[in-house]
Amino acid sequence: MTNSSSESSISLRPPSPDDRGAVGALLAATGVFRPEELDVALEVFDGCVRGLGYLGAVAVRAGRVVGVALWGPSPMTEGTFDLYWLASHPDAHGSGAAGALLSAVVDDVRRREGRLLIVETESTPGYARARRFYEREGLTEIGRIADYYRPGADKVIGAMRLTHER
Amino acid sequence: MTNSSSESSISLRPPSPDDRGAVGALLAATGVFRPEELDVALEVFDGCVRGLGYLGAVAVRAGRVVGVALWGPSPMTEGTFDLYWLASHPDAHGSGAAGALLSAVVDDVRRREGRLLIVETESTPGYARARRFYEREGLTEIGRIADYYRPGADKVIGAMRLTHER
Repeated sequence: MTNSSSESSISLRPPSPDDRGAVGALLAATGVFRPEELDVALEVFDGCVRGLGYLGAVAVRAGRVVGVALWGPSPMTEGTFDLYWLASHPDAHGSGAAGALLSAVVDDVRRREGRLLIVETESTPGYARARRFYEREGLTEIGRIADYYRPGADKVIGAMRLTHER
Repeated sequence: MTNSSSESSISLRPPSPDDRGAVGALLAATGVFRPEELDVALEVFDGCVRGLGYLGAVAVRAGRVVGVALWGPSPMTEGTFDLYWLASHPDAHGSGAAGALLSAVVDDVRRREGRLLIVETESTPGYARARRFYEREGLTEIGRIADYYRPGADKVIGAMRLTHER
């Protein structure tokens, strides 16, 4: 048995168009997203790699893309950002990929003088893991829209307020 | 003095590309929207007249476009709709244009088997008239994100739940 700690370490980089297949595959592998949601996620990915206002990062482990984050400034706001998608491949759960991606998002939003990061999730059991992750990482539930996605599937609005040294 | 009731009555129709100038002018005349917001509103208008998934109506009085509504299905939801913009020219305040537009939106959303109509406004004084209008028309505040638009400018989330005879 070899020591694989260096092989299994997570690195982050900006997404490239070539990552589209891997990103689509890892989003599908989570089993959380419905086909329409996968389409929207890949549209945001395309908007990111084409420089259309979306920001992104992928997490790589042993040369393989195992996670993705897509975020951007919320239209018509000053200093509010939306984290549109953050997901990691089930194979990489526990690897720290999601935490590393979220840290990179928060660092980037701070650099852009963001004040507020918004993350919307579903109230359904499939998102329980995601909701626990965000809570652990310091996001607070600040609102909920009952039956928003479908009857029984609320929108849960989480937020992290960012402060800056002046 | 002539009876101008027929001249001053409000009629609604779908927007055409030729309405872009009048819509931009009435949105600017409200004095409520900042330049970036006007740009976003006209992007949504363009998306509507090009058939890109946004729905719209204009209110016409005496041959002049005095109001506009732009709405559409909320991405990744089943039966939730967003009312993106609803505005009337200050000259037409009190004319019933805004109420007629909102009624048309609600009727259209019901026809599309919508369950939920979401309207987001600002907490600032400039939007007080709008918030009173929506409350009077049956929308309920269901959430608020403090300092969302800018420090001191909250997002106020209003909703109307629609029921259907089955």
